[in-house]
Amino acid sequence: MRTSKYLLSTLKETPADAEVISHQLMLRAGLIRKLASGLYTWLPTGVRVLQKVEHIVRDEMNKAGAIEVLMPVVQPADIWQESGRWEQYGPELLRLKDRGERDFVLGPTHEEVITDLLRNEVSSYKQLPINLYQVQTKFRDEVRPRFGVMRSREFIMKDAYSFHTSRESLQETYDDMYRAYSNIFTRIGLDFRAVQADTGSIGGSYSHEFQVLASSGEDDVIFSTESDYAANIELAEAVAPNVTRPAPTKAMELVDTPNAKTIAELVEQFNLPIEKTVKTLMVKATKESGHKLVALLVRGDHNLNEVKAEKIDIVASPLEFATEAEIRAIVGAGPGSLGPINLPMPIVIDRSVAVMSDFGAGANIDDKHYFNINWERDVALPRVADIRNVVEGDASPDGKGVLQIKRGIEVGHIFQLGTKYSEAMKATVQMEDGQNQAMAMGCYGIGVTRIVAASIEQNNDERGIIWPDAIAPFSVVIIPMNMHKSPRVQEVAEKLYADLQAAGVEVLFDDRKERPGVMFADAELIGIPHMVVIGERNLDNGEVEYKYRKAAEKTMIKLDSILDHLKSKIK
Amino acid sequence: MRTSKYLLSTLKETPADAEVISHQLMLRAGLIRKLASGLYTWLPTGVRVLQKVEHIVRDEMNKAGAIEVLMPVVQPADIWQESGRWEQYGPELLRLKDRGERDFVLGPTHEEVITDLLRNEVSSYKQLPINLYQVQTKFRDEVRPRFGVMRSREFIMKDAYSFHTSRESLQETYDDMYRAYSNIFTRIGLDFRAVQADTGSIGGSYSHEFQVLASSGEDDVIFSTESDYAANIELAEAVAPNVTRPAPTKAMELVDTPNAKTIAELVEQFNLPIEKTVKTLMVKATKESGHKLVALLVRGDHNLNEVKAEKIDIVASPLEFATEAEIRAIVGAGPGSLGPINLPMPIVIDRSVAVMSDFGAGANIDDKHYFNINWERDVALPRVADIRNVVEGDASPDGKGVLQIKRGIEVGHIFQLGTKYSEAMKATVQMEDGQNQAMAMGCYGIGVTRIVAASIEQNNDERGIIWPDAIAPFSVVIIPMNMHKSPRVQEVAEKLYADLQAAGVEVLFDDRKERPGVMFADAELIGIPHMVVIGERNLDNGEVEYKYRKAAEKTMIKLDSILDHLKSKIK
Repeated sequence: MRTSKYLLSTLKETPADAEVISHQLMLRAGLIRKLASGLYTWLPTGVRVLQKVEHIVRDEMNKAGAIEVLMPVVQPADIWQESGRWEQYGPELLRLKDRGERDFVLGPTHEEVITDLLRNEVSSYKQLPINLYQVQTKFRDEVRPRFGVMRSREFIMKDAYSFHTSRESLQETYDDMYRAYSNIFTRIGLDFRAVQADTGSIGGSYSHEFQVLASSGEDDVIFSTESDYAANIELAEAVAPNVTRPAPTKAMELVDTPNAKTIAELVEQFNLPIEKTVKTLMVKATKESGHKLVALLVRGDHNLNEVKAEKIDIVASPLEFATEAEIRAIVGAGPGSLGPINLPMPIVIDRSVAVMSDFGAGANIDDKHYFNINWERDVALPRVADIRNVVEGDASPDGKGVLQIKRGIEVGHIFQLGTKYSEAMKATVQMEDGQNQAMAMGCYGIGVTRIVAASIEQNNDERGIIWPDAIAPFSVVIIPMNMHKSPRVQEVAEKLYADLQAAGVEVLFDDRKERPGVMFADAELIGIPHMVVIGERNLDNGEVEYKYRKAAEKTMIKLDSILDHLKSKIK
Repeated sequence: MRTSKYLLSTLKETPADAEVISHQLMLRAGLIRKLASGLYTWLPTGVRVLQKVEHIVRDEMNKAGAIEVLMPVVQPADIWQESGRWEQYGPELLRLKDRGERDFVLGPTHEEVITDLLRNEVSSYKQLPINLYQVQTKFRDEVRPRFGVMRSREFIMKDAYSFHTSRESLQETYDDMYRAYSNIFTRIGLDFRAVQADTGSIGGSYSHEFQVLASSGEDDVIFSTESDYAANIELAEAVAPNVTRPAPTKAMELVDTPNAKTIAELVEQFNLPIEKTVKTLMVKATKESGHKLVALLVRGDHNLNEVKAEKIDIVASPLEFATEAEIRAIVGAGPGSLGPINLPMPIVIDRSVAVMSDFGAGANIDDKHYFNINWERDVALPRVADIRNVVEGDASPDGKGVLQIKRGIEVGHIFQLGTKYSEAMKATVQMEDGQNQAMAMGCYGIGVTRIVAASIEQNNDERGIIWPDAIAPFSVVIIPMNMHKSPRVQEVAEKLYADLQAAGVEVLFDDRKERPGVMFADAELIGIPHMVVIGERNLDNGEVEYKYRKAAEKTMIKLDSILDHLKSKIK
């Protein structure tokens, strides 16, 4: 490709609204442009990278026996009503009406479409297992699109769905996908970790996220310092403290706390250790519980884990916090003065709270707290559960080492869905014994567009992007110095360009009438792995300059061996 | 690919709601499945064909110097308001609101997005010409989706947009695209014609359609019997008859015609030759004309060409027919009794009408017609224009031969848009003299998904699809007879499968426990070009059976030369 015939679109300035480095570099290197909030056009250089990622994804999926299909972006509402997600899915599901006023959605995922397809196409256990995938445009109406294509509204996803007659068969394909994903992210050159994950709103029972480690990541990834244990923050278990609850040492007292509505205020004004305070949060109860609200207690320095809380049988799902009015109607006090004493509703306390003694909490009377509360002496010990986020230094759930927390970018996610969709949508096959059985399902997603951003987060320096060879937009850039004044430089550059193209190498030939400095800066900003600089002075010595993007130093190569040199570096 | 691991999804029965052969065969051969009206899932066999078409399209676009980008499916309304199409585009443009109640559309084309991109990315004449393309999902909310993917609502299009500083540069790229399109359709193996076309609602000045000839086509394609002249029905000129208007022979008379509201009734009840009758149609006039309606007269056996009519300066655009109430308010008679005598509005008559004499038409009095009307004697000759569709036997506009009409499927369309979008959206570049100038634009579309259907319309027989080799889902199918009972058949089949795969040949290995007849029928239905049948009896002679899908006869090939035989046939 000649730069003069190309849309290079590099920018000198860093765009003001780009917060993370990948977003900045994708704009500056001419990979993407914003069309509207969360909607991006991929420029030529971006498309080249994207297609390389897609190729690797397809190649590994095909090797793993998955078969490619292509489903529509626009999906009819009726199948979403059938699965129940028409009601369950929040405003991220963009709903629309066609000219006939019929309801449709822009697909954020395709469980319904594929389940509808398979219930029609597959009738016998003999046709299973099968694993179908697509590389396709998705839409999620994010409340706050940001970080460029990292969290955009329209994006490209590889989504696969497998169908099985048994959990064992599902596990086999799940393991195949785990390996395929590991191969994909390894080939793309990402530093990633597979972590146990919660299955979230998509439902199901078993899941791993593939997280690319980067400080700009939006997810907390939890590791053990001394084992392979890895999980996301939603799932990571906060184990019960390995201590016995200390005996009470002080009498409980009711204290006026008119200016302490928060734990921070309480700690500051009364000089309490934060580990001796308890936060009380109130959420809606299930109808079946016979209560309106449930109180959830965590230590003052801990945070509620909403995913864990939602799994408690008496807590309504999806989790919904009580309003102040609802709290006052039942407790007679506001949210800043809640605690376990005389609370007319079910209480669930975190494992860490269960081993506290002499602690402070709201008195369920406005502007008052109880200090030195003790379980069993002052109030019965409530139900105990793991309902908090882990923190660094917590014991690892596998008993080995303590937990560390790093930021991660989720680029892949594999789920065992079980029969959630197949039962709701009556997707069955006839088994060997003649009985119909709902198919067990797995689903497997990769954020194709997000991978490009994640790779840049891990591969950049002050000069720009440093592409791994496998997904670089071009393998080689040729920079001829002052070519328009030097027929010799032009001749050598044109010949090398022709030779590289003939060898099947993707090469960018910077034939612009620009100063060498501008061309170097663009080549490094775009991050092309191999650079050849051709200039009069070096040609006098029969040499050209070669520089590998990752290396600090350039080297001189004899002109007659540069082609072989490049070919050996590339393959 | 082993059939046992594949989603073959062939059907024995022809689905009842599939009207055309390509739709029937795409369903029966397991290429597509309907999700909802105008929305189709592509099954594995369909995806394989689609990707081959996409590959050829990309390859020829790249060779022609076009550069690939990727724009969003969802587009913000503001750029459509800027171009004016937010108002002009009918209900085929699906409008939607996001969670913030902002207006968006599902892109039916991308002129606005690309023009917005280029006005930001390109500032100097030095950066032009440039030709950018994408292969991307489009949505048009068709009032009547039909014929499967031939006229679906969601479809894949290759759309390209070129930008220029001069008409000459635009013409060069237009010619490049004309050649690229000819190469693409030739490589895909389509019997097509490039025809002059009207530019329609997209605007612009010069255009060709690439039409695949097939009886199920929705377009009329017009050819000369004796020259290269080809145009679509919207554009094909109906030349002025090469005759002088005959002199009047009869006196005009007013006739009671209470039961003749249509030309057909008039002709039948009064035994008039249809060529001696005139139809009067009334459409809205432009505001500037000072009139409400315009009357358009065509011969009784001709049809109004709405595209030609819309181009008349006093006719409102888009063309809108007058209602009966509007007609009665001005004329005092209904639509079944209209004619040129005493008509209080501008009249435009077709060239064929201008040479009529002694003709019948409505009297502008309910239930009455005038017979034997003559121009100039009974009423002044009105303005004359070409406002009808051509009919077979009309003289060719280039003076050579007469016109023929065939049905065509539009698979490609190239336009010279000129500055329609760049002026509306202020997309300018600075010229050498420092002045800013709106960029001239071309746009170039190919219906990628539609090509698959069009190919089947031209390539099928009573047994199924006959793929051209270039886009066949598999090159070879191996059919082992009773393999599950014959280790020898299995061994030979497995070895041939492995050898073909090693040679890079795409091969389907039918390893199902099915009767040979079922396997033959599926292979021919799917239309795989090369079939190898392996059976005990032929192996006794050291032979296997080879059949080319297009050929009637099978041939016996020595087992030790079948691999070379296939390789020679395929490349």
